[in-house]
Amino acid sequence: MHLQIFTTGGTVDKVYYDALSDYRIGDPAAPDILEEGRVDFAYAVESLVRKDSLELTDEDRALIRARVEASPHRHILITHGTDTMTLTAEVLRDIPGKTIVFTGAMQPARFRDSDAAFNLGLAVAAVQCLEPGVYIAMSGRVFAAGRVRKNRAEGRFEATGGESAEQENA
Amino acid sequence: MHLQIFTTGGTVDKVYYDALSDYRIGDPAAPDILEEGRVDFAYAVESLVRKDSLELTDEDRALIRARVEASPHRHILITHGTDTMTLTAEVLRDIPGKTIVFTGAMQPARFRDSDAAFNLGLAVAAVQCLEPGVYIAMSGRVFAAGRVRKNRAEGRFEATGGESAEQENA
Amino acid sequence: MHLQIFTTGGTVDKVYYDALSDYRIGDPAAPDILEEGRVDFAYAVESLVRKDSLELTDEDRALIRARVEASPHRHILITHGTDTMTLTAEVLRDIPGKTIVFTGAMQPARFRDSDAAFNLGLAVAAVQCLEPGVYIAMSGRVFAAGRVRKNRAEGRFEATGGESAEQENA
Amino acid sequence: MHLQIFTTGGTVDKVYYDALSDYRIGDPAAPDILEEGRVDFAYAVESLVRKDSLELTDEDRALIRARVEASPHRHILITHGTDTMTLTAEVLRDIPGKTIVFTGAMQPARFRDSDAAFNLGLAVAAVQCLEPGVYIAMSGRVFAAGRVRKNRAEGRFEATGGESAEQENA
Repeated sequence: MHLQIFTTGGTVDKVYYDALSDYRIGDPAAPDILEEGRVDFAYAVESLVRKDSLELTDEDRALIRARVEASPHRHILITHGTDTMTLTAEVLRDIPGKTIVFTGAMQPARFRDSDAAFNLGLAVAAVQCLEPGVYIAMSGRVFAAGRVRKNRAEGRFEATGGESAEQENA
Repeated sequence: MHLQIFTTGGTVDKVYYDALSDYRIGDPAAPDILEEGRVDFAYAVESLVRKDSLELTDEDRALIRARVEASPHRHILITHGTDTMTLTAEVLRDIPGKTIVFTGAMQPARFRDSDAAFNLGLAVAAVQCLEPGVYIAMSGRVFAAGRVRKNRAEGRFEATGGESAEQENA
Repeated sequence: MHLQIFTTGGTVDKVYYDALSDYRIGDPAAPDILEEGRVDFAYAVESLVRKDSLELTDEDRALIRARVEASPHRHILITHGTDTMTLTAEVLRDIPGKTIVFTGAMQPARFRDSDAAFNLGLAVAAVQCLEPGVYIAMSGRVFAAGRVRKNRAEGRFEATGGESAEQENA
Repeated sequence: MHLQIFTTGGTVDKVYYDALSDYRIGDPAAPDILEEGRVDFAYAVESLVRKDSLELTDEDRALIRARVEASPHRHILITHGTDTMTLTAEVLRDIPGKTIVFTGAMQPARFRDSDAAFNLGLAVAAVQCLEPGVYIAMSGRVFAAGRVRKNRAEGRFEATGGESAEQENA
């Protein structure tokens, strides 16, 4: 497997700038996590956008789609802010022949109790185990795009009516 | 999904006892990692053995097998020392109707740069995405049992001749 | 030594609220750090204010002063935002008979590479080793109040003209 | 202040070697901690020995003493295993004109809940605030050498009969 990772910002990559008393999107956290995970496959990481996902525009999503389509690789992992992750996933749904998995984090990867490393592991397994399609790997679950929403009040992702990836394999 | 987790010791659960100037197997790390991962599924964690995997006996493996077979659940995740993980996986290979995934860590989960959270995420996705069978989720890969070995010198798991879970889905 | 700790907010206590996509002041980090530090002295932690230090008012500082004066203890440690730490320290300068040490952090204590634990250790030693007076323990240094400023551009505290606590003891 | 740091091994510098299923003394943890602490003073770190402190010999202690005496600097910080820290401190007690502070950790610095960063902060403040002499900074306390012992059963350092550094300053 060669894994192409595109990063788009979001909480997972947030750092704290003391000079601003504020967080900002920092460098992608994915490379450090993959190194900690001692992964034994080839991968490339490319930063496409650095935004809170609420600020992503149609142009940003068109760019993400174009870069995924242009990639020669079958396995695509996208780190993304959680608030509009499902929306961007919809935009990529009809790309054929690629397994595309979105993940992100509820807590910045730099935090001691972040969910980032766990979520990235989840996404890495999903991208290599699943048929072509678009998926969201969050809250310990792997959801098919279009059948999942973020429950912001509860701070988790949950299935909407349809079946989950798990059930399709059951 | 209801996930049944059995823990058997290994590096992932090692803690440092100052009073002994030594590492020992501590409480299972899995529950803390799943909490950090903010997982949205039901799970139970049961500690079966607390050993370095080099010290596991045939009796220990018979116990592990018996408990997996007796579980009413389809999704089984086993945390295990890395040195004989492939051996225990072989012992479970002909259990029908269950997706059984082994994982562990090269560095104790209590370490700041441990691979434990990433590996557990990997295993959690594998257990819900794959057909019944026995798998090993390590080094960022999901391997079918019987087609994987630990390369101790390199500190990673690698495929042996056969195909990986990924290729079966390709 | 009985150590009285007052917390007032600041970066050290910031947590990330996914529901707001924003940092806010959370519960004081000091108790967890002292537990990690395995300290062998009695202490009490009381939260007086929960603010970015740029938002502290004269009333807040009067409250802090009143609580320090009313404390029966000689050793006082105050966690505080870094931007106006020197200003609050000035307000307490003429309180007699107490060793009062301010500290805080440039990165939230919840971050993996935070300076919070190191800074709190610095302050705990200063409060037990120094004569009565008001001090700031930051950037690995212990400064007498009134002889220190935050260099925001450089992200550190530095002496202003006068002597440091170290030099007084030299 | 120019701080000379000598490292001698001990739990603080322990890492876990998967290939050996064992811990060993690794590279000194002090530089990373000082960087996290964003310290604003000059320092040099030199590794003299890499041992569990139970294995330190008279020759090792003679070496440590010789290097401390030969240092042109007044401020000396020594990281050391906790089991014989008080013994090595005794060996240095009559060196004049230097403030020498020992510290270490009950849990390896690489652990997420280690006391190493807190302890190093404690030692850094002690070395700059105290009169020449030999001290031990552990368990949140600063002890004069000769008046402290490790209570191994309790996992902490405690005063023995005499007065602590704090009381001398009271």
